[in-house]
Amino acid sequence: MKVFAYGIREDEKPALKDWESQNPDVEVEYTDQLLTPETAKLAKGADSAVVYQQMDYTKETLEALAAAGVKNMSLRNVGTDNIDFDAAKALGFNISNVPVYSPNAIAEHSMIQLSRLLRRTKPMDAKVAKHDLRWAPTIGREMRMQTVGIIGTGHIGRVAINILKGFGAKVIAYDKFPNPELQKEGLYVDTLDELYAQADAISLYVPGVPENDHMINKDSIAKMKDGVVIVNVARGNLMDIDAVIDGLNSGKISDFAMDVYEKEVGLFNKDWSGKEFPDPKIADLIARENVLVTPHIAFYTTKAVSEMVHQSFDAAVSFAKGETPAIAVKY
Amino acid sequence: MKVFAYGIREDEKPALKDWESQNPDVEVEYTDQLLTPETAKLAKGADSAVVYQQMDYTKETLEALAAAGVKNMSLRNVGTDNIDFDAAKALGFNISNVPVYSPNAIAEHSMIQLSRLLRRTKPMDAKVAKHDLRWAPTIGREMRMQTVGIIGTGHIGRVAINILKGFGAKVIAYDKFPNPELQKEGLYVDTLDELYAQADAISLYVPGVPENDHMINKDSIAKMKDGVVIVNVARGNLMDIDAVIDGLNSGKISDFAMDVYEKEVGLFNKDWSGKEFPDPKIADLIARENVLVTPHIAFYTTKAVSEMVHQSFDAAVSFAKGETPAIAVKY
Ligand SMILES: NC(=O)c1ccc[n+]([C@@H]2O[C@H](COP(=O)([O-])OP(=O)(O)OC[C@H]3O[C@@H](n4cnc5c(N)ncnc54)[C@H](O)[C@@H]3O)[C@@H](O)[C@H]2O)c1
Ligand SMILES: NC(=O)c1ccc[n+]([C@@H]2O[C@H](COP(=O)([O-])OP(=O)(O)OC[C@H]3O[C@@H](n4cnc5c(N)ncnc54)[C@H](O)[C@@H]3O)[C@@H](O)[C@H]2O)c1
Repeated sequence: MKVFAYGIREDEKPALKDWESQNPDVEVEYTDQLLTPETAKLAKGADSAVVYQQMDYTKETLEALAAAGVKNMSLRNVGTDNIDFDAAKALGFNISNVPVYSPNAIAEHSMIQLSRLLRRTKPMDAKVAKHDLRWAPTIGREMRMQTVGIIGTGHIGRVAINILKGFGAKVIAYDKFPNPELQKEGLYVDTLDELYAQADAISLYVPGVPENDHMINKDSIAKMKDGVVIVNVARGNLMDIDAVIDGLNSGKISDFAMDVYEKEVGLFNKDWSGKEFPDPKIADLIARENVLVTPHIAFYTTKAVSEMVHQSFDAAVSFAKGETPAIAVKY
Repeated sequence: MKVFAYGIREDEKPALKDWESQNPDVEVEYTDQLLTPETAKLAKGADSAVVYQQMDYTKETLEALAAAGVKNMSLRNVGTDNIDFDAAKALGFNISNVPVYSPNAIAEHSMIQLSRLLRRTKPMDAKVAKHDLRWAPTIGREMRMQTVGIIGTGHIGRVAINILKGFGAKVIAYDKFPNPELQKEGLYVDTLDELYAQADAISLYVPGVPENDHMINKDSIAKMKDGVVIVNVARGNLMDIDAVIDGLNSGKISDFAMDVYEKEVGLFNKDWSGKEFPDPKIADLIARENVLVTPHIAFYTTKAVSEMVHQSFDAAVSFAKGETPAIAVKY
């Protein structure tokens, strides 16, 4: 059996090596190139292809892959918006993705950023970097003293709650579909307004579906406590960023961490040093001492990358054996 | 009743105001000056003095305070090494300190720094600051994947263990006097050598007593895993810093966070920007991307400062009433 992988990055190689050593009967070949109508022929002779790219899987690309004899395609990531499913169906493709790789990667990042905001590590680090070793006035706040509002208690929100419990923080939560176990613990408030009124810090874990668009806006911010701390590692479109910037300017919002941004496509995961950002807001946010910006890296851990590689290659083998892996995409 | 306080800092004022509003019957006066033979007379008419300073409480100082009619002295901090206890005894002083203010302040800081080292936030922050928004190769590791060795399971070590459990990390611990509850949970290893052999990350919570001097040295580091992460928020003299620097240089130690330093007196809590450090090692450590240096600020939270103020003022009132507060120093 043979699997051919596209777009393999340096940081994926340890996980790939690991998978190969656990599957000595499977021949693995790979390239750092993405899957295109031109590169499709590289997969010739393989039983399945493993892929990961933002670029579209067009009709032409899928036809070229099918022409190379490969009709099993396993994505190493979750997003499938860039697949021409009509073409895939016509050609008879089997497709899988990796919907859950490591909720902990994202939950940990969000809680590390929250603890850093409370502790004011950005100004303290800046002082130390310029050899100013005075502590005052950079005093921190403790996680255990906060009431933290968790919006969305799915895979990631639930892990964040466990981390907060370890710190001894008070957790309140809101979800449209409450989790029965958390409900027994009495963590839920009945409305978002109650959460806004009670929380010292708020962290978001809901999907970026249209109904959640700009849920953090002028009106919802007005309902929050003065000096609230906000963390968003979920989706950029959950926030009206202008309202957040206004809140920072007025002091209504004391601190803010963001790993996602409404206009992040084409902005994040690029090197802008020495160049001008297409969006001046991002430079303003990065420069603030009470704001932590990261470029959609919450998922980016060795464990998450390893899960993405292992799950996708396992699925590629399943397809090749004529089986349907649990993570097959139904379309 | 009247209490006079010395050396009040800006960051203590909110807690002081809070205490005053809870004790409307007590008259409070204060100064930002430290207690010296000259300033002692400011306390005239007070029943107790509240103090906090690194400067010595000499025979002359205590005599001057006694001459002003004040023989109750409540420290807002823990350390009493700078008190001339012979003179205090001869003058009949009542003295209290604040031995436990917030173990969480210190435990949280240590775990925040550990999580940051694993997540490589220092190089990632530096990239973002210069507008390089690429994620690779700055990949993080997850707390939950680590076996963390906790040396010392007293007030602070135990809080660190709870935080680690929240993250889902595996905890192993060592203490010369094991805590019965942790023992039941099976967290202890029998020897430090076992802890060194098994831990991916090690954090210290033992006192800087002579027998613990340089417990982290060339030999103990050699017993640790390759790529170990070390955190020290306890005491600087626990480490042979040259051995730690050698370990960083060879890669044996992958990351290191320190809030304490053997030669920190006269170095920390001063502004060295534009000046040369008395010790070149500290500049070297600060500059490394896998090292986080903080100037003994683990304790420095609003909650800890509030405890220091409230406990010391409460003790000052107790003394004035002729009572013996629980935190009176027996000498
Ligand atoms: N930054 C990153 O690297 C990264 C990586 C992966 C996922 N994410 C994002 O994290 C978020 C959470 O992911 P997950 O895996 O936990 O999702 P999930 O589907 O497991 O959980 C989402 C929860 O949100 C709830 N919900 C939806 N709309 C709501 C609303 N308006 N009010 C209250 N609750 C609502 C749902 O009932 C569900 O319980 C998503 O936005 C996802 O895109 C970010
Ligand atoms: N960075 C800061 O701002 C800051 C503030 C306060 C305290 N500290 C330091 O934190 C450390 C822990 O403080 P704590 O309040 O938890 O102390 P503690 O006395 O409550 O606990 C110390 C524990 O260490 C154990 N121990 C002593 N020597 C040992 C050895 N050689 N091997 C194994 N165990 C040993 C003791 O049995 C005890 O359980 C101390 O060094 C203290 O000075 C730092």
